[in-house]
Amino acid sequence: MQVYLDNNATTMCDPQVVEAMLPFFSELYGNPNSLHKFGTAAHPALSKAIDQVYTGLNASDKDDIVFTSCATESNNWVLQSVFTDHIVNGNKNHIVTTEVEHPSILATCKFLEDQGVKVTYLPVNEQGVVEAHTVKSFITDKTALVTIMWASNETGMINPIKEIGEICKEKGVLFHSDAVQAVGKIPVDLQDVHVDFISFSAHKFHGPKGVGALYIKDSQDLTPLLHGGEQMGGRRSGTLNVPYIVGMGMAVELATKNIEDTMAKIRAKRDRLEDALVELSDTFVVGDRDNRTPNTILISIKGVEGEGMLWDLNNGQIGASTGSACASADLEANTVMLAIGADNELAHTGIRLSLSRFTTDEEIDYTINHFKEAVARLRAISSSFAKQKPTAGGEVQECELHHH
Amino acid sequence: MQVYLDNNATTMCDPQVVEAMLPFFSELYGNPNSLHKFGTAAHPALSKAIDQVYTGLNASDKDDIVFTSCATESNNWVLQSVFTDHIVNGNKNHIVTTEVEHPSILATCKFLEDQGVKVTYLPVNEQGVVEAHTVKSFITDKTALVTIMWASNETGMINPIKEIGEICKEKGVLFHSDAVQAVGKIPVDLQDVHVDFISFSAHKFHGPKGVGALYIKDSQDLTPLLHGGEQMGGRRSGTLNVPYIVGMGMAVELATKNIEDTMAKIRAKRDRLEDALVELSDTFVVGDRDNRTPNTILISIKGVEGEGMLWDLNNGQIGASTGSACASADLEANTVMLAIGADNELAHTGIRLSLSRFTTDEEIDYTINHFKEAVARLRAISSSFAKQKPTAGGEVQECELHHH
Repeated sequence: MQVYLDNNATTMCDPQVVEAMLPFFSELYGNPNSLHKFGTAAHPALSKAIDQVYTGLNASDKDDIVFTSCATESNNWVLQSVFTDHIVNGNKNHIVTTEVEHPSILATCKFLEDQGVKVTYLPVNEQGVVEAHTVKSFITDKTALVTIMWASNETGMINPIKEIGEICKEKGVLFHSDAVQAVGKIPVDLQDVHVDFISFSAHKFHGPKGVGALYIKDSQDLTPLLHGGEQMGGRRSGTLNVPYIVGMGMAVELATKNIEDTMAKIRAKRDRLEDALVELSDTFVVGDRDNRTPNTILISIKGVEGEGMLWDLNNGQIGASTGSACASADLEANTVMLAIGADNELAHTGIRLSLSRFTTDEEIDYTINHFKEAVARLRAISSSFAKQKPTAGGEVQECELHHH
Repeated sequence: MQVYLDNNATTMCDPQVVEAMLPFFSELYGNPNSLHKFGTAAHPALSKAIDQVYTGLNASDKDDIVFTSCATESNNWVLQSVFTDHIVNGNKNHIVTTEVEHPSILATCKFLEDQGVKVTYLPVNEQGVVEAHTVKSFITDKTALVTIMWASNETGMINPIKEIGEICKEKGVLFHSDAVQAVGKIPVDLQDVHVDFISFSAHKFHGPKGVGALYIKDSQDLTPLLHGGEQMGGRRSGTLNVPYIVGMGMAVELATKNIEDTMAKIRAKRDRLEDALVELSDTFVVGDRDNRTPNTILISIKGVEGEGMLWDLNNGQIGASTGSACASADLEANTVMLAIGADNELAHTGIRLSLSRFTTDEEIDYTINHFKEAVARLRAISSSFAKQKPTAGGEVQECELHHH
């Protein structure tokens, strides 16, 4: 049995999505910006995809949703263009973000700091959540942008985006959210929440890798990142990736239609897995379940190096992660766990398990068995764990990561 | 019969390319940056694709080729990052380009002019070619970058890239070429020509839309456009679009292997089509055939509006263009023809026909017949043409566009 539990890194492309894309490679291959039939033949499918995305996120017709090559592009676009529009060519100089954003936000902030921008990196609480009053207290009249992830890729913890949106609206500050881990996992209603920009990516919800979007509230101005032709109303140039846009539309529809039902099923499997794993002694799961994306577990197993555990799971045909795939080539401590307050040793023991709608009960059973055996194997050879006296087994120590 | 003659806008994805991509959607779907088997399973295919691209362009192992989402991204990247690295954080302030570049170069130059950069837009000669001595005469000690297209999307005319490269090398100025219309159409040997950066895009040579690359000579420094994770050695972040990278590798291989033979066949069909069309009176083809990409004809038919002709061809199931698809939604004069020296009336009469390796002799026959009938139909209703006395029919007036 093969078990893929790394769906926060990327997902299997849904076969229905692939089927929807296929005609646009070698049959309806015209450039949609061409005036002839080969080009216009793609228009109905593009219109349908756009409708599917607007419907799935309950965007207003007044808003713009611009397809990009990924959420990394969308994130870079918002940050770099707010810099151009409101800092270089405006009187602001400050961006507010958090310590636990995705590398595409943190590295862009670092780049902008090199260009003279002041960036505030807000801490998160022990739940891994940024608190709205913290955001409020750091906004100044020089703040151009607040950018805070909707849900964490590492922990699945959900930030109070509605509250933060109200604060930004009241303060007259632009608000962007990297919603990569929210869209398709929890309901995202863009007419219920005040957010100026959100980024998302199809491959996180069973669409193809290499297509994302930026939502722009009220179609407000934003200098393009990719200058050029008139594609996407002049907002994002480059020949339209018709197959992937069609695929993304389908993926949004499949992921958001009946999302409550789908997620209830995923949540039940996730909870069963989590309940079984925390029966092991000295395990800690980050964050309150009720405020977490329903597919995610970040579990720390005292005395077991994350990389060792990953390796053992891999030998058992289980794909998991020690954290963000974007940083997983480095054997570093989990930065989110450090931010939450775990010490360095504990932060090396995090394993993220992320389910999808394709995860089966049999896969959960298999994972529970293999995981428990792996922990026993690895603890047997772990010198750091052997030196310590284990605490009583079976105790659920959820969300109890402290500074030491 | 349907005849697609708009291959400079985009191409049909080769069914072999689609076949190569398919396993990477729903079977080998892991994130290649993940450490587990689901991720590493994609590595051999990615390595193969990289090899195919290096081989196809004869790049050196010392060079970098970074996959992007399209040549528009590659073009924006080079221009915006040379701006950051050598103008904002350096002592240069000048970019040299031409009047006939693709919108992704021209619009980015305009954006950089708004940021204070001086841009020289070089004219082209009556062949639509920028002359090397012209380039040389405009380079100053403040010039950060020369960016000149390898071949024109509109006319197919090939610039003297080797000569310009030598000039830039001698002057110590960075040289970028938008090679979108060169790669896969003419041999591009990156160890024979001195060029610091080239941009290209898979969908121009029967790969998928939505993947391109930037070649970086000697792996020199260049600030990323998309900041974030460690993908592509930290040069271009975002989850790798595995299917399209695999497809691009295959597309480069298919397009560059035996390119001389393939292009000789396309050239023969193109020449036959061109010979037949210039039999019509008062027709003008832009540029010397021997210095043109072998698949392209930009023909002007006096008294026939480009859009009217396009419409008539479209009714005959023939897809052609009045110029760049990136600007084709606007009913404007062909800017390249204006740059070459055509008057405004003539510049409204350009029709671009661009063949591919999938174009058949039957399609050429069909096009010749339909094209001639269309010209007769449209000239019959053209008031502007009726007012003039036609010149003797059958006279080939190649490359004779004059200022009036």
